[in-house]
Amino acid sequence: MWRDLVPIGRSASTGGYFRQPWHAAELELRAWFREAATTRGLEVEGDPFGNLVAWWGPAADFAATGKVLTGSHLDSVLDGGAYDGPLGVVSSFAALDLMRERGVEPARRLGIAAFVEEEGSRFGRACLGSRLAVGATTWEVARELVDRDGVRLGDVIEGGESTMLDGVGTYVELHVEQGRGLIDLDAPVGVHDAIWPHGRYRYDIAGRADHAGTTRMEDRADPMLTYALTALAANEQARVQGQRATFGRIDVRPNGTNAVPSHVTGWLDARAESDAALAALVEEVERRATAYAERDGTSVTVTAESVSGEVAFDAALRDALARRMGDVPVLPTQAGHDAGILQSVGIPTAMLFVRNPSGVSHSPYETAETADCLTGVEALADALTGLVTGEVVV
Amino acid sequence: MWRDLVPIGRSASTGGYFRQPWHAAELELRAWFREAATTRGLEVEGDPFGNLVAWWGPAADFAATGKVLTGSHLDSVLDGGAYDGPLGVVSSFAALDLMRERGVEPARRLGIAAFVEEEGSRFGRACLGSRLAVGATTWEVARELVDRDGVRLGDVIEGGESTMLDGVGTYVELHVEQGRGLIDLDAPVGVHDAIWPHGRYRYDIAGRADHAGTTRMEDRADPMLTYALTALAANEQARVQGQRATFGRIDVRPNGTNAVPSHVTGWLDARAESDAALAALVEEVERRATAYAERDGTSVTVTAESVSGEVAFDAALRDALARRMGDVPVLPTQAGHDAGILQSVGIPTAMLFVRNPSGVSHSPYETAETADCLTGVEALADALTGLVTGEVVV
Repeated sequence: MWRDLVPIGRSASTGGYFRQPWHAAELELRAWFREAATTRGLEVEGDPFGNLVAWWGPAADFAATGKVLTGSHLDSVLDGGAYDGPLGVVSSFAALDLMRERGVEPARRLGIAAFVEEEGSRFGRACLGSRLAVGATTWEVARELVDRDGVRLGDVIEGGESTMLDGVGTYVELHVEQGRGLIDLDAPVGVHDAIWPHGRYRYDIAGRADHAGTTRMEDRADPMLTYALTALAANEQARVQGQRATFGRIDVRPNGTNAVPSHVTGWLDARAESDAALAALVEEVERRATAYAERDGTSVTVTAESVSGEVAFDAALRDALARRMGDVPVLPTQAGHDAGILQSVGIPTAMLFVRNPSGVSHSPYETAETADCLTGVEALADALTGLVTGEVVV
Repeated sequence: MWRDLVPIGRSASTGGYFRQPWHAAELELRAWFREAATTRGLEVEGDPFGNLVAWWGPAADFAATGKVLTGSHLDSVLDGGAYDGPLGVVSSFAALDLMRERGVEPARRLGIAAFVEEEGSRFGRACLGSRLAVGATTWEVARELVDRDGVRLGDVIEGGESTMLDGVGTYVELHVEQGRGLIDLDAPVGVHDAIWPHGRYRYDIAGRADHAGTTRMEDRADPMLTYALTALAANEQARVQGQRATFGRIDVRPNGTNAVPSHVTGWLDARAESDAALAALVEEVERRATAYAERDGTSVTVTAESVSGEVAFDAALRDALARRMGDVPVLPTQAGHDAGILQSVGIPTAMLFVRNPSGVSHSPYETAETADCLTGVEALADALTGLVTGEVVV
């Protein structure tokens, strides 16, 4: 399976992946998903938002909340790695193959999901597919989202209502690790207990366009200076407060070498170990930006584009799976996941993660060892076996 | 004439102008130029680079270096003002009309020029048209220039050899002021004596792409931090050294909210009162950027994309015109002009400039009063009359 996926959406120059939703590479991944499902005799269900699920096992005979779901996503950030998302989908199919080899007889229906636009790399909302599937984001709001080329989501897909998660009682997502936890603990796989709170904030900084040569330094209202000071302050505050803050995206107008910009937009990505810590971090960065703007003669407006509170995964499920896997490490993650969305609407959810020897993520350098991936597949198959046979009850 | 030009290439949202060479708005301006020339019975000559000139007066009877040239350019920076360039072209036609009304009999041939890509807003080289016309830039180099959409100049125009400036012995360019000199001196028009040295330098800062949430602050190699520190250092050094430095253009990869960038490219625009002052400024900014990169675990490469030494306009011509205009102010400019290119290859050149009450330039806020513009036309007509009749000899 991995060999089939490697070339899809890969940049020849960076080696990274560009798999934005509803663009060619991502559509090819979906075709691959449908083929992987149908060759296994699974029934594929799509919802009006582009989420996919491949079903195995008894269709009629399950309790109202008895279906078990696994899977992940197929899209990538811009210039991302190969594993973030696809490893979970591929491992789900591989775990199913292993369960069949072992003669597992599912008492509950098992689905393998591929959620759409998990990274938010095209329409700017992380976990958009799962948010729409659970109703955490409404179609009325989502259809007005616009990508960088000015394309409206409502003009890309029709939208409607998703019934894909009806009757789902448990979700287990396997993911490549984003960080160095398993490297430090020398373990191939682990279980996440929580997702840190996370917010994205747009900083619109308005100044006055001017000639870069003829305008005296003291006559300028240069929003690039306010931006630079704010980006540095965010970094400093994240260090001081022990949290995470990043300005990694910028849009400058007119963006000409010989012009003082009229407008700089920067995006702050902030994460923290608690909702209170996130609020404190974000407040301090905004306070500083406002002070810098006053100094520079510019003005700043901060808009929260998305804020997700802390998500604690189901404790009983987490403990049952960690025990079943041989007391593997239990750690929080700072990355958002569809698993967090499903947990937040009350579906008991667990996350397994596989060691990433590079320690880097959202980058072409992200990687995973084959041996660790196979350990992940074994662990996922064990976890799902426990759930679909009823040995593990949530 | 002004009424015809106002709507061409104007953004409805900002009120600024987008008149990049060989795009629709600029082609419309050229059609306007040809019409303005032919309705006046002038002979239009184009060169293989897109420069245009409209000729008046005796064709055969002039000395080898006897032609007089005036004019300016029609292109704009991205989101620029209405006057920068077009005021010089329109004033040239108006001055010609005035000279004809006054019955001036030219002994020398007079040309009105519109040089192409003066701003360098499309192919990144300021004064590209005049550089090509005088041979300061060769076609072999220029045809490989690529715009932001990846289009090669060699695929836009055929190129070749320009004979447009053959026999030109004097150039006079009128321009809107870029700065506050005439505001401070309360004068409607002035004469420039020199252009400050000017350089554009590309800063390529390489870091390591990573996940904005999961990567510990201390594990990052974030090129955005190096960029921010460098942009602030350039501003500070320009203040300290009394010169000009601007980072107004940036390109970030992958430019995603939740990714530490892999690469940031920034462009430094630097100007100084002497070649030595420019070298000192540029050297200090680069020295600091290198130190910041070392601190941030990134690497920086600085490439000089263009460097223009100081240009002193012809002193005799300047004094003759300033005297003829009633001892108007004589000031240097920090902006590059085609006039500087022609002067630098030994064509005696002068620049007149018209007050800009906003003091801002390369901006939709740039402006000029009608009365000042008419004073500019009178001054230009007087200067050109002196030159074409032989009253002023250079």
